[in-house]
Amino acid sequence: MKTVNEAALWLQSHDTYVILTHCRPDGDAVGSAISLCLGLRSIGKTAYIWKNPQFTPRYLPRLQGLVIDTVPEHATIISVDMATEGLLPINGKDFAGKILLSLDHHPSNTGYAQHSLVLAQCAGCGELIWDLLEELGVAITKEMAEAIYIAISTDTGCFRFSNTTAHTFMTAAKAVEHGADIAPINRELFEIKSKGRLRLESRIMANMEFYADGKVAIACLPQTWVEELEVTEDDLDSISGFPRTIDGVQVGIMVRDSEPGKAKLSVRTANGYDASAYCSKLGGGGHKAAAGCAVAGTLEDGKKAILEVLKQEQVI
Amino acid sequence: MKTVNEAALWLQSHDTYVILTHCRPDGDAVGSAISLCLGLRSIGKTAYIWKNPQFTPRYLPRLQGLVIDTVPEHATIISVDMATEGLLPINGKDFAGKILLSLDHHPSNTGYAQHSLVLAQCAGCGELIWDLLEELGVAITKEMAEAIYIAISTDTGCFRFSNTTAHTFMTAAKAVEHGADIAPINRELFEIKSKGRLRLESRIMANMEFYADGKVAIACLPQTWVEELEVTEDDLDSISGFPRTIDGVQVGIMVRDSEPGKAKLSVRTANGYDASAYCSKLGGGGHKAAAGCAVAGTLEDGKKAILEVLKQEQVI
Repeated sequence: MKTVNEAALWLQSHDTYVILTHCRPDGDAVGSAISLCLGLRSIGKTAYIWKNPQFTPRYLPRLQGLVIDTVPEHATIISVDMATEGLLPINGKDFAGKILLSLDHHPSNTGYAQHSLVLAQCAGCGELIWDLLEELGVAITKEMAEAIYIAISTDTGCFRFSNTTAHTFMTAAKAVEHGADIAPINRELFEIKSKGRLRLESRIMANMEFYADGKVAIACLPQTWVEELEVTEDDLDSISGFPRTIDGVQVGIMVRDSEPGKAKLSVRTANGYDASAYCSKLGGGGHKAAAGCAVAGTLEDGKKAILEVLKQEQVI
Repeated sequence: MKTVNEAALWLQSHDTYVILTHCRPDGDAVGSAISLCLGLRSIGKTAYIWKNPQFTPRYLPRLQGLVIDTVPEHATIISVDMATEGLLPINGKDFAGKILLSLDHHPSNTGYAQHSLVLAQCAGCGELIWDLLEELGVAITKEMAEAIYIAISTDTGCFRFSNTTAHTFMTAAKAVEHGADIAPINRELFEIKSKGRLRLESRIMANMEFYADGKVAIACLPQTWVEELEVTEDDLDSISGFPRTIDGVQVGIMVRDSEPGKAKLSVRTANGYDASAYCSKLGGGGHKAAAGCAVAGTLEDGKKAILEVLKQEQVI
């Protein structure tokens, strides 16, 4: 499928939808699923979201009345925001090979579904869903608008990331016009940090090392801290990017020992520095601005290895 | 004046503009001034921005070639984002009584100018300026679009605050359509923190006190820390809100001793709590969600006083 219109016609001609989200579902997956499910119901279709055991607690109130954990007869299985069947939820591996429509924005979508609509220009899958709901003639409600807002705001870091486009802002404008109350959502998603996260950041900051006049910052995150400070997986979200949020830092490195015997390095760089080049020297890879690698040994071993590379590359 | 159209007609019929920004100019003031100045020049007008000695360094490259510090003959003095003449820049007090047009979004605008266009529904004055440029028939350039983006994104905390409307998002969408490269702007304005700020937050966090099962958080910021950590005024931006960014905190209080012999308290509250009521008991005031007061004495005295009020109010 190439257009939202084709996907809309297909959805109009089927029924009894079960919508899948990927494992460890983020705001874009959950928001896209909720709005699509509500939209399909509003035009008379039967629709459910497959109960993903990894839904984060903050989204459960919005999912109430929408989820199902058995497959109804004659179900039409569709997925949102899912690039590969390898990302099926942990209780949904049996859906492999049975997905009829994939609605996605990942250019890496493997084409696993019978039909796919992949719009890679969308920052969030939620943008595609909004256009689809309009195409379906859905009267978009506050609940749908807020779900889409969650989808697009989380996938763009509240419109900060470089994937944000005019279309993203336009979709946010429409969400507000359709009643989305965005201030409390923004506060919950982008402003509030847990005590554990703040204490962890404090400790990371106090132990951070700077090189090359502050252009390079290296931080270690020992797993013992994670346990000691009772930090959750949610608290660790995007912690790898923390060194690069410091003024003047062009190359930010986070070293973790979350797997025993291994130092995992995340490297984030500004324009003019190539994270992928540094990491590939240690057997890793990624993009120019964000890459990773793993080194056998302790946190100290990992730090030494990347510092050696940065010396070779004349960064420090 | 009631409409953007009236303001456009007025601007078309005058010339030799000197645009004033308020003292301690923020992104909205600077961005509004830059885009208006460029826009007026693009339609053949002579236009300058009055050189405000408090322009922050980050905006100076964008101001290059636009500023002036002597008043040309037959100048038309106008102001952007300025609610009262009390806010005239420190080197512009003589403009009092001479401002012919005020373009503003503050409902508290005192009507000091001969003509005023005050659109209080705009989150940033930049929204009004965009509509004005369109009305003037300006071909909006990347430079103008980025200046407007700076204006509206800073006044909404990157679209997080409750003042953000559909019109704000629409204006951002148009800015991107007109070439604004927003990712580096967002990174500089909303992602990067100075080492001083991060160290200060660490120290505040380590010394924060929690009451009522974590619903109330009180933090002190001794002026000695500001000096010791070499924290700038810029670094202290919105530090008063820090306690309220912690998960679960409904009443966040920051106590500072920036003036000798006085403890200044900032109180921020969630729905269901009334910051203004607490502060008025100590001779201060403000809004329900954000209020302030001052207590004679030390930081400890300030803390004791507000805790006493919270006990009386049965918050703790």
